Amino acid sequence: MLYLVHMIVDIPDSLPAEEAARIKAEEKAYSQDLQRSGKWPHIWRVVGQYANYSVFDVESNEELHNLLSALPLFPYMQISVTPLATHPSAI
Amino acid sequence: MLYLVHMIVDIPDSLPAEEAARIKAEEKAYSQDLQRSGKWPHIWRVVGQYANYSVFDVESNEELHNLLSALPLFPYMQISVTPLATHPSAI
Amino acid sequence: MLYLVHMIVDIPDSLPAEEAARIKAEEKAYSQDLQRSGKWPHIWRVVGQYANYSVFDVESNEELHNLLSALPLFPYMQISVTPLATHPSAI
Amino acid sequence: MLYLVHMIVDIPDSLPAEEAARIKAEEKAYSQDLQRSGKWPHIWRVVGQYANYSVFDVESNEELHNLLSALPLFPYMQISVTPLATHPSAI
Amino acid sequence: MLYLVHMIVDIPDSLPAEEAARIKAEEKAYSQDLQRSGKWPHIWRVVGQYANYSVFDVESNEELHNLLSALPLFPYMQISVTPLATHPSAI
Amino acid sequence: MLYLVHMIVDIPDSLPAEEAARIKAEEKAYSQDLQRSGKWPHIWRVVGQYANYSVFDVESNEELHNLLSALPLFPYMQISVTPLATHPSAI
Amino acid sequence: MLYLVHMIVDIPDSLPAEEAARIKAEEKAYSQDLQRSGKWPHIWRVVGQYANYSVFDVESNEELHNLLSALPLFPYMQISVTPLATHPSAI
Amino acid sequence: MLYLVHMIVDIPDSLPAEEAARIKAEEKAYSQDLQRSGKWPHIWRVVGQYANYSVFDVESNEELHNLLSALPLFPYMQISVTPLATHPSAI
Amino acid sequence: MLYLVHMIVDIPDSLPAEEAARIKAEEKAYSQDLQRSGKWPHIWRVVGQYANYSVFDVESNEELHNLLSALPLFPYMQISVTPLATHPSAI
Amino acid sequence: MLYLVHMIVDIPDSLPAEEAARIKAEEKAYSQDLQRSGKWPHIWRVVGQYANYSVFDVESNEELHNLLSALPLFPYMQISVTPLATHPSAI
Repeated sequence: MLYLVHMIVDIPDSLPAEEAARIKAEEKAYSQDLQRSGKWPHIWRVVGQYANYSVFDVESNEELHNLLSALPLFPYMQISVTPLATHPSAI
Repeated sequence: MLYLVHMIVDIPDSLPAEEAARIKAEEKAYSQDLQRSGKWPHIWRVVGQYANYSVFDVESNEELHNLLSALPLFPYMQISVTPLATHPSAI
Repeated sequence: MLYLVHMIVDIPDSLPAEEAARIKAEEKAYSQDLQRSGKWPHIWRVVGQYANYSVFDVESNEELHNLLSALPLFPYMQISVTPLATHPSAI
Repeated sequence: MLYLVHMIVDIPDSLPAEEAARIKAEEKAYSQDLQRSGKWPHIWRVVGQYANYSVFDVESNEELHNLLSALPLFPYMQISVTPLATHPSAI
Repeated sequence: MLYLVHMIVDIPDSLPAEEAARIKAEEKAYSQDLQRSGKWPHIWRVVGQYANYSVFDVESNEELHNLLSALPLFPYMQISVTPLATHPSAI
Repeated sequence: MLYLVHMIVDIPDSLPAEEAARIKAEEKAYSQDLQRSGKWPHIWRVVGQYANYSVFDVESNEELHNLLSALPLFPYMQISVTPLATHPSAI
Repeated sequence: MLYLVHMIVDIPDSLPAEEAARIKAEEKAYSQDLQRSGKWPHIWRVVGQYANYSVFDVESNEELHNLLSALPLFPYMQISVTPLATHPSAI
Repeated sequence: MLYLVHMIVDIPDSLPAEEAARIKAEEKAYSQDLQRSGKWPHIWRVVGQYANYSVFDVESNEELHNLLSALPLFPYMQISVTPLATHPSAI
Repeated sequence: MLYLVHMIVDIPDSLPAEEAARIKAEEKAYSQDLQRSGKWPHIWRVVGQYANYSVFDVESNEELHNLLSALPLFPYMQISVTPLATHPSAI
Repeated sequence: MLYLVHMIVDIPDSLPAEEAARIKAEEKAYSQDLQRSGKWPHIWRVVGQYANYSVFDVESNEELHNLLSALPLFPYMQISVTPLATHPSAI
């Protein structure tokens, strides 16, 4: 079941640089694990922004929320979720 | 080169039903040709809406505009385009 | 799996009154069938508006889109869908 | 009398972590008391967000405001309220 | 129980002038009946607009929706409702 | 001459609690003086928000601005003003 | 007493050209009468738009609404009104 | 003196196709005359939309409004104008 | 050449009170110099807000930007600029 | 391949003045290098704002993102990107 997910990252200046770096490294590892598992099949950078559009492939709304709320950068992101369905013209 | 394209369809009541049906059939054929060519790798229905999110893979802005403006439903769609780049965490 | 669905109805003046009445009767029957089936557990009128907030309980995004796009009033509605998950404070 | 309530939580970084934890624990207890009393019949997490949609069942606008403004997280939430009525198609 | 109600009127050109005049006369009579009953204590014109801000004093969300949806101009109005409560500084 | 005034209060965390309490007490006294004088005939709490809708009855734009900008909470409020006139259906 | 008034004109295609021309001529005469009277001291065209920003100098909200709602183009305009006061830096 | 001008074209269905074609031909000729004159140095298509971003180089606000309001498609366009100045980093 | 300029002032709490007072005094002197020179013919307070609408009369976009960006409060203001032209109904 | 890029700069007060000055100097040098290379053919100041509209001429979305995300002021800018194509009326 697919969802389009839009994530905008906004790390506050008050976060120490080393802590930000650590969280970003964890985020990368976490994301790559999910990509390898097939649950996060697409992640694209939005040109000119610290943001991405991603596609998630999960079993349920519940699973998607669990995956997203466990993102190391979750406290610093604004996320919006669009449920997707098969398009009748898709081949 | 990838772009996320959001298309909202709004066919006016004044368009005769047969003409609308003909245009939709042309749209479907046109879309499926582009999907087969590899230029339109993803098309998803937005749940609950007469709208889609699509990903296009083209050589240039120019090519993308030519493909989109030739859509049979183009006069009845509101389209927005987001250029995409490789995400540093993508595997 | 739950979704909050917001539906705003806007029937154009150009639709003949009898046809509008027929579609509304079909909508009511369709809605009540889904309510009885357990797939549409809540439907509330938004005070002062020709609109409703509903909760759907379905198996997938796909099923939700199929149910919504089959609404007799679908061509005359603006629909937005919010996927829901269990709240950690829910009893 | 039913109301749909949308709550977005935004706890500032300046709040010490222990105090945030204490307030969240109080919020959970407060919410569960109201749920048990029947005044807060539904609370759902919005997928991907630190936000919820809830339904309240109270006697009056006054009572609803008293309940909401006493939420331990009230100073850190953006709340919007939609009054609901019986839908004519509801079974 | 008080509610602030914002009504914007937009009568389409396609409505014949006599019918529009008849509906407006009915609206005025309906409004004045409710004002006399005490249920519609305030109605003010928004300067420069075919719109009003009103205060309603009713028993429930249900009653408010019944009153508003029975407005003769209801099909031609965009209405938004804000529930009000006693302000702690009110004398 | 009447105006609808919408006030949203947002006191920053950086304001010491005692100073906030003092300003709120001054605000209450100031508001009640104006209410007694007849210049601030209505003040209602917006349900679920630290905000109010008020009606002011003053001689001029000038007088209204002087009253509003002297509110003790003025530096912490977002205010919008809607000029009102007699509604032709008002009794 | 001054007000900034923003007027956007949108004449529907369904209005016959001669009637539109007649209304515009009436609008011009009406506007120039008010300008001569001192009640409409400024009217400026917004560059690139069929819109204007104007300043009105009237005795009351009531008078302003009467003047604006009597504009021959009133049914075809979207108007917003901003009450103005003396600026403390004005010379 | 430079201005960025954003033009969105929306030709109503009610305009006969031949008249639309005639107006578009006039628009093209008019635009190319101004481009040759140096007053309209840039015109770019917005990808996926019947819209353009243009740069105008004129003597005054007055001249710009005269040029824009004389566009054959002016009645069918939504135009917004951004005044530009020399950027301190421009070479 | 005229421009309507909207300025919203938002001085952060972190600015020491004396520095804020000094900047405001400089702003007032600067504004009054420009008013006396004829380049800033109108400045009006927006009722209920720390904001103004002003009219500037300058030779060019360039001159306007130079004047605005030299405002002592420029770093603390949100400014929007609307180019104005002669209205055909102006007397 | 052309893109219109809108950049709004917002440097937080918490950034020390010398560091801000250093970053701005780097930004200027970086921008001028790209201008000389032909990749950043236009940069214009938006009148009255700490913002610019720019045109970039690059090989791909990828290259554009690399150039923009390497801007020394990138962490302090809000950037939006509009892909451009040849306009059929362009000479």
